[in-house]
Amino acid sequence: MLSVALLGAGRIGRVHAKSIAAHSGSRLVAVADVHAPAAQELAEQAGAAVRDIDAILTDPTIDAVLIATSTDTHSDLIEAAAAAGKAVLCEKPVDLDLARAQACLTKSQASGQPVMVGFNRRFDPNFAALKTSYDAGDIGVAELLSITSFDPAPPPVEYIKVSGGIFRDMMIHDLDIAQWLMGARPVKVTAHGSALVDPAIGAAGDVDTAVATLHYADGRLCVIRNSRRAAYGYDQRIEILGSKGLLQADNVTESTISRAGSEGVISAKPVYFFLERYMRAYEIEWAQFVDAVQSGTPVPATLEEGVAALAVAEAATQSMKTGQTVDVPSV
Amino acid sequence: MLSVALLGAGRIGRVHAKSIAAHSGSRLVAVADVHAPAAQELAEQAGAAVRDIDAILTDPTIDAVLIATSTDTHSDLIEAAAAAGKAVLCEKPVDLDLARAQACLTKSQASGQPVMVGFNRRFDPNFAALKTSYDAGDIGVAELLSITSFDPAPPPVEYIKVSGGIFRDMMIHDLDIAQWLMGARPVKVTAHGSALVDPAIGAAGDVDTAVATLHYADGRLCVIRNSRRAAYGYDQRIEILGSKGLLQADNVTESTISRAGSEGVISAKPVYFFLERYMRAYEIEWAQFVDAVQSGTPVPATLEEGVAALAVAEAATQSMKTGQTVDVPSV
Amino acid sequence: MLSVALLGAGRIGRVHAKSIAAHSGSRLVAVADVHAPAAQELAEQAGAAVRDIDAILTDPTIDAVLIATSTDTHSDLIEAAAAAGKAVLCEKPVDLDLARAQACLTKSQASGQPVMVGFNRRFDPNFAALKTSYDAGDIGVAELLSITSFDPAPPPVEYIKVSGGIFRDMMIHDLDIAQWLMGARPVKVTAHGSALVDPAIGAAGDVDTAVATLHYADGRLCVIRNSRRAAYGYDQRIEILGSKGLLQADNVTESTISRAGSEGVISAKPVYFFLERYMRAYEIEWAQFVDAVQSGTPVPATLEEGVAALAVAEAATQSMKTGQTVDVPSV
Amino acid sequence: MLSVALLGAGRIGRVHAKSIAAHSGSRLVAVADVHAPAAQELAEQAGAAVRDIDAILTDPTIDAVLIATSTDTHSDLIEAAAAAGKAVLCEKPVDLDLARAQACLTKSQASGQPVMVGFNRRFDPNFAALKTSYDAGDIGVAELLSITSFDPAPPPVEYIKVSGGIFRDMMIHDLDIAQWLMGARPVKVTAHGSALVDPAIGAAGDVDTAVATLHYADGRLCVIRNSRRAAYGYDQRIEILGSKGLLQADNVTESTISRAGSEGVISAKPVYFFLERYMRAYEIEWAQFVDAVQSGTPVPATLEEGVAALAVAEAATQSMKTGQTVDVPSV
Repeated sequence: MLSVALLGAGRIGRVHAKSIAAHSGSRLVAVADVHAPAAQELAEQAGAAVRDIDAILTDPTIDAVLIATSTDTHSDLIEAAAAAGKAVLCEKPVDLDLARAQACLTKSQASGQPVMVGFNRRFDPNFAALKTSYDAGDIGVAELLSITSFDPAPPPVEYIKVSGGIFRDMMIHDLDIAQWLMGARPVKVTAHGSALVDPAIGAAGDVDTAVATLHYADGRLCVIRNSRRAAYGYDQRIEILGSKGLLQADNVTESTISRAGSEGVISAKPVYFFLERYMRAYEIEWAQFVDAVQSGTPVPATLEEGVAALAVAEAATQSMKTGQTVDVPSV
Repeated sequence: MLSVALLGAGRIGRVHAKSIAAHSGSRLVAVADVHAPAAQELAEQAGAAVRDIDAILTDPTIDAVLIATSTDTHSDLIEAAAAAGKAVLCEKPVDLDLARAQACLTKSQASGQPVMVGFNRRFDPNFAALKTSYDAGDIGVAELLSITSFDPAPPPVEYIKVSGGIFRDMMIHDLDIAQWLMGARPVKVTAHGSALVDPAIGAAGDVDTAVATLHYADGRLCVIRNSRRAAYGYDQRIEILGSKGLLQADNVTESTISRAGSEGVISAKPVYFFLERYMRAYEIEWAQFVDAVQSGTPVPATLEEGVAALAVAEAATQSMKTGQTVDVPSV
Repeated sequence: MLSVALLGAGRIGRVHAKSIAAHSGSRLVAVADVHAPAAQELAEQAGAAVRDIDAILTDPTIDAVLIATSTDTHSDLIEAAAAAGKAVLCEKPVDLDLARAQACLTKSQASGQPVMVGFNRRFDPNFAALKTSYDAGDIGVAELLSITSFDPAPPPVEYIKVSGGIFRDMMIHDLDIAQWLMGARPVKVTAHGSALVDPAIGAAGDVDTAVATLHYADGRLCVIRNSRRAAYGYDQRIEILGSKGLLQADNVTESTISRAGSEGVISAKPVYFFLERYMRAYEIEWAQFVDAVQSGTPVPATLEEGVAALAVAEAATQSMKTGQTVDVPSV
Repeated sequence: MLSVALLGAGRIGRVHAKSIAAHSGSRLVAVADVHAPAAQELAEQAGAAVRDIDAILTDPTIDAVLIATSTDTHSDLIEAAAAAGKAVLCEKPVDLDLARAQACLTKSQASGQPVMVGFNRRFDPNFAALKTSYDAGDIGVAELLSITSFDPAPPPVEYIKVSGGIFRDMMIHDLDIAQWLMGARPVKVTAHGSALVDPAIGAAGDVDTAVATLHYADGRLCVIRNSRRAAYGYDQRIEILGSKGLLQADNVTESTISRAGSEGVISAKPVYFFLERYMRAYEIEWAQFVDAVQSGTPVPATLEEGVAALAVAEAATQSMKTGQTVDVPSV
């Protein structure tokens, strides 16, 4: 039984709290949040104690911490928790600054503790089935990977301002999917973007519509499309063109209902957003974390991969600003 | 080069005239119609002569006649044309009266001339692909065949009154598809129907919504669903449940366009009616008739099959009226 | 908090135990089963006590019983539990004998206790969405309802022998869906069947492939297709042809993955069987039972509806045997 | 009746000859080809004369010429035909050299003759339906256009060597679709490519897998994906993400048949290549050319648009070579 402390009792923290509670091999024992009432409410629901972070990290009965605090605290908390001998699952991104993230990686690796990054999409059953099929050689060798990721609606501009920009905040998920599927990291990236959805996003120095092309050392290519708005819901698709065929993961829809009438055939749209689409993925993510920690096997999405994805995001940000193709720094 | 005379210059006659003209192995030389202006107009377009039926049948240079006149003339014209040594393609149904159709079959077979019935759906490329797959054993042995055939809108009640009823007029196509796919004729039929679309159809003694279940000697079953109205267009689907799987032919749609928005995903509806759906089938039907006549091989939809389908339609009509399962008479 | 006792610790009992445990408003306190080790195992998992049925029914702290025992005990247990003042959720069918089921209904109604029948499909989110759309008038008035229900593989013949036959055992679900969607009970039924999947099923006096046509007083029709085998999984589809269009509920598939290659485009098949397809439906079913009992509102699938479905199943059985259309007895 | 001469009797010339013959308003009167037997064979089939180009251009009874010769002759023939007072339909691309194409444009415009470029995809009924829906405002304003164009198999390397490279030869179609749908020309382009399908293509200095991102003055983006190989056939898809939704044109498939079995659900793949997919588009293209010439209205795909698409292709070629985003020269 893994004793777990949750740092951060916001929306995503509450999602993880459910997974911890639902898993027969883990137990939520402590919750910390800078906003005391949030910690209190979640702790009560979960039958856990409200504790401060120092107390959590020095408590030898706590085996693991799940970091779901604001991004600017991630690196510090990862380092501290790993140094305290805890297994760590931290939400993405590791940091908004690549050098800081790399330093965190070095320190954490020195601790020898397992540190996993919350790249939830890898655990989506559909994407996992796609990877299984691809790895089995069903379409031969990948030549062109395409990832579509459109949110239903943009977040508040206040969030945009501290988000690190679309590549670090949103596309980082797709950059991880790319390295996970392609089994390699890109050597160069070219990125483009515009503020078309909301001029306020442009005024905040960010874009809401973005395209990135990733170049691999062996010539393979990957195209990622991002938008902060899709009027029809959360659009999450992957397709891989390989030497023997095309592999696609289509959206999950609200139902299997369709209606044919004089205006056409109307079927259900994709489920609304990530909570609807990835709830099962969060549960599986947690289960795989618990399995890895308990069995001493590597975690399925390492801190190194989290830093590697950030390195591509940083290069993409630079590419968009300069109009140049940018080399991806090694991690 | 097959010299062809067309009897009947109405809507379906004009469809066939196009196929005759488009085929490099046939030539339309004569047109007859009780309505002289219709014959005149079509003959002019086709570069053919307007002639009366007697003249056509006694002209030794005419090889084949295509009968597209009103149903009540079919048996007489088939007999006369076959007796005159012409190859015959006649529109369905052979007759509204089974005994009359059987007599026509006996006489026509005595003539030795090829007589084909215009069961156009057999020549639809999708249905033909379904049959090829089934015959190749892709789903093992058929256990339950299901045929859906919904028209977009009912014909005028005046037409209903002389149509012979839904089973002889409309379901006869599905009854032919069933014998074609199952490779056998049913031994019993149970049929049901209601006038739900238009009370005037009920007042005319017919139904507009009908279901028939066909029973084969070896226990296999077939369900046919008919409606005179589908607000979304012409619904023409087939599915076969076999021991190894399910084979389906879905509708042909107006386009491959879809639009996702806040109200759902809207895609194209089925093409409107038989002219849109089966135009290619009419061309292939004609080509196969020409091939069979010129090569001396059997025509692909024989008069005997036309009479057999009519026998099932007659039994279905009787079943609906009596509420009993009815034996299908042999042909 | 509803205190619940579970009668029957077999496969479906264990499914319900999970729903009871997962619901915040209910608690499983007792388990009974004629097979003591099964009761023991489930009780331990659930933190409940093993008790015999008499003890359960006389315990005033138990609010509700869920009956998941063998069919031949359903009527007796419903009567006893209702008489003991318990709310009841009983698996389908109510009984294999209509007269016995009707007697059970009379006694249970006299008790005033809520008695719900486990028609789980009503609670499937897709079918519920279909009903919502239909009830909203999206396709006008229903004219022809079609229900497809194919199991992936037949049960053991030993089960078939005590099942009451395909109409009472399997089609009863579809008969309930029909009354639920059509808002009416059929006045007549015609049914047909064959043993095509397994001759041993025929030798046991049952069929494995069946078709039934239901006739409503206002002329509407319903066609139900059943097979005990579908090589591609559990095929559960509904379509309603209405005056303004067609409403369809398609299957739930194993994933959203497809693969295009030289042999075609391969996509996922339907999920394997009822546990995969209807797990969520069982949870919702239980939640609606708890809601109804706690709020004193009618349960969503009443014992009367269970008996009404059985009446149609019995008429269908008779129809198949006699080849006649059979009147459905009123309940 | 438009009297037409066909220059070039190769594969695409024969496709156009059929369209000319099938159209009631045009007549093929002359055929020229450097390979005399090809000209002879096609002329005989079409009932036209074999003539040399000079004779054709000086014959005042010839109204229009269709240029389907090798690319290196296009500019010269367009200029000569326009100067001779003929209406012109010329296959794409206008030229492999942008300056030469611009000179051709200047001269041709001076002639006042209608000159159309054979961008056949605009006339595909599905793409036309997509444009109609987009222009009607169904998805609001376009933000991100995505075009997928994968050939089933690469052409011979000998062809690749004289093709002008993938952007001028293959992507030029997609560049035209982009300007047609977006109603604007891009200001910048970034392009990438690799030789992954066949090393011989790389050795010939070309790529077989390419991605281009187009940048519009108002910030809108377009992504084009090209591959010379798709094991499943000709993949021709378009999607537009707009402020109110997503508009998609999916592939045309070989049939509507699907087969569900233990291995999944297998449906038909896309039709094999451009002759199968775009035969109807070629007919409509020709009909619209005839209409425009006869009515004196502008042709639907002008020489200027052909040169504009070439300008983007040239910028894309340069971008791929330099790794820079490149400004698109104005035309």
